Amino acid sequence: MSLNRSLLEKNDRLAERNRGFFRAKKLLVLNVVSAPGSGKTTFIRETTVRLSGKLRVGVVVGDLATDNDAAQLRAAGIPVVQITTGTVCHLDAEMVSKAAAQLDLDKLDVLVIENVGNLVCPADYDLGEDLRVVLLSVTEGEDKPLKYPPMFHSANVAVVTKSDLAQAAGFNRKQALTNLKRISHHAEVFELSAKTGDGMKAWTDYLVKRRTETAE
Amino acid sequence: MSLNRSLLEKNDRLAERNRGFFRAKKLLVLNVVSAPGSGKTTFIRETTVRLSGKLRVGVVVGDLATDNDAAQLRAAGIPVVQITTGTVCHLDAEMVSKAAAQLDLDKLDVLVIENVGNLVCPADYDLGEDLRVVLLSVTEGEDKPLKYPPMFHSANVAVVTKSDLAQAAGFNRKQALTNLKRISHHAEVFELSAKTGDGMKAWTDYLVKRRTETAE
Repeated sequence: MSLNRSLLEKNDRLAERNRGFFRAKKLLVLNVVSAPGSGKTTFIRETTVRLSGKLRVGVVVGDLATDNDAAQLRAAGIPVVQITTGTVCHLDAEMVSKAAAQLDLDKLDVLVIENVGNLVCPADYDLGEDLRVVLLSVTEGEDKPLKYPPMFHSANVAVVTKSDLAQAAGFNRKQALTNLKRISHHAEVFELSAKTGDGMKAWTDYLVKRRTETAE
Repeated sequence: MSLNRSLLEKNDRLAERNRGFFRAKKLLVLNVVSAPGSGKTTFIRETTVRLSGKLRVGVVVGDLATDNDAAQLRAAGIPVVQITTGTVCHLDAEMVSKAAAQLDLDKLDVLVIENVGNLVCPADYDLGEDLRVVLLSVTEGEDKPLKYPPMFHSANVAVVTKSDLAQAAGFNRKQALTNLKRISHHAEVFELSAKTGDGMKAWTDYLVKRRTETAE
């Protein structure tokens, strides 16, 4: 549909403007996507807490309704701006640009964008991020990369979350990693539990490294 | 947007046509929606197996890609038709009409439509169902009804799934039921584990009762 194409082309241009702006600010920008309930907010909160003293993190949170996630992050002392999308199933570059302007970006090293919980719509919308991070929780089933290929294919990083529930959920780790490798060709893969902290160090070390590259 | 409105109005008309057609066939029709990985396919398979000898169930399955779910249902001896949507994040009435025509509907009592795993897009699309059934797994968090109000508000039935994982996931049952009651005003609520069978009888008894009403 031409209307749709024109909207996407407009978004692509605004996303590149965001990318340039964020680069000038020496920010490492993450676009975190997943199904509803994969643990995005807890993952972002624990990432930020563990980076404390190394990297300063700010967050833009998108949701159809409620500011629960923003409130949870704010309670942990994290600078956060909420975007309420109403019925829109993804963030776009313009929403992110406006929301980011409400943060004091000169005091941040990393900007994390928590997208709307959805494995379809956000795939088409570049936000100007450096890293698109897709989460897959062990309770969702191993086949999700195969069933939502555009989202998983476009990811730079794939994070298997809630690893503490792997045994209870009967998670087939080998199958999940095979499926991730098949669809998320380009992705670095991490496995962790934000709840127990297991695997979090490798992930935060990776961010420190990537931020150093961005700021060079 | 007028284009969007016109598409939705067209869908609403086709959905009513489906509704009339299904009524004439004395079918009880379910539209099962949830986030990716809430357990729709296992829930539908176990529902069908437990209804065996009482009600004959056929399934229409929607997915962006793969026919994994259809294959899983077919392996259990269930008549099933797959719809592959490509990049479309929901089923619509026309897709369902075409897919249902591939089933021998005169030999069925219940038609279950497994929608694309998504808590946003399917909310706007009536398929001509009698019951919209939304699933919420205990591993997703108690706040999902608040965060995806259009989907949960439009549901006739809300099913809390994977109850066997409630303890491991630290599920706050009371909070979840409060949130469901707040958004899914009209919904009957069931709590169950398709894996262990716990709570499945109340659900299948309900379907038997509803199908009797439909066929009267």
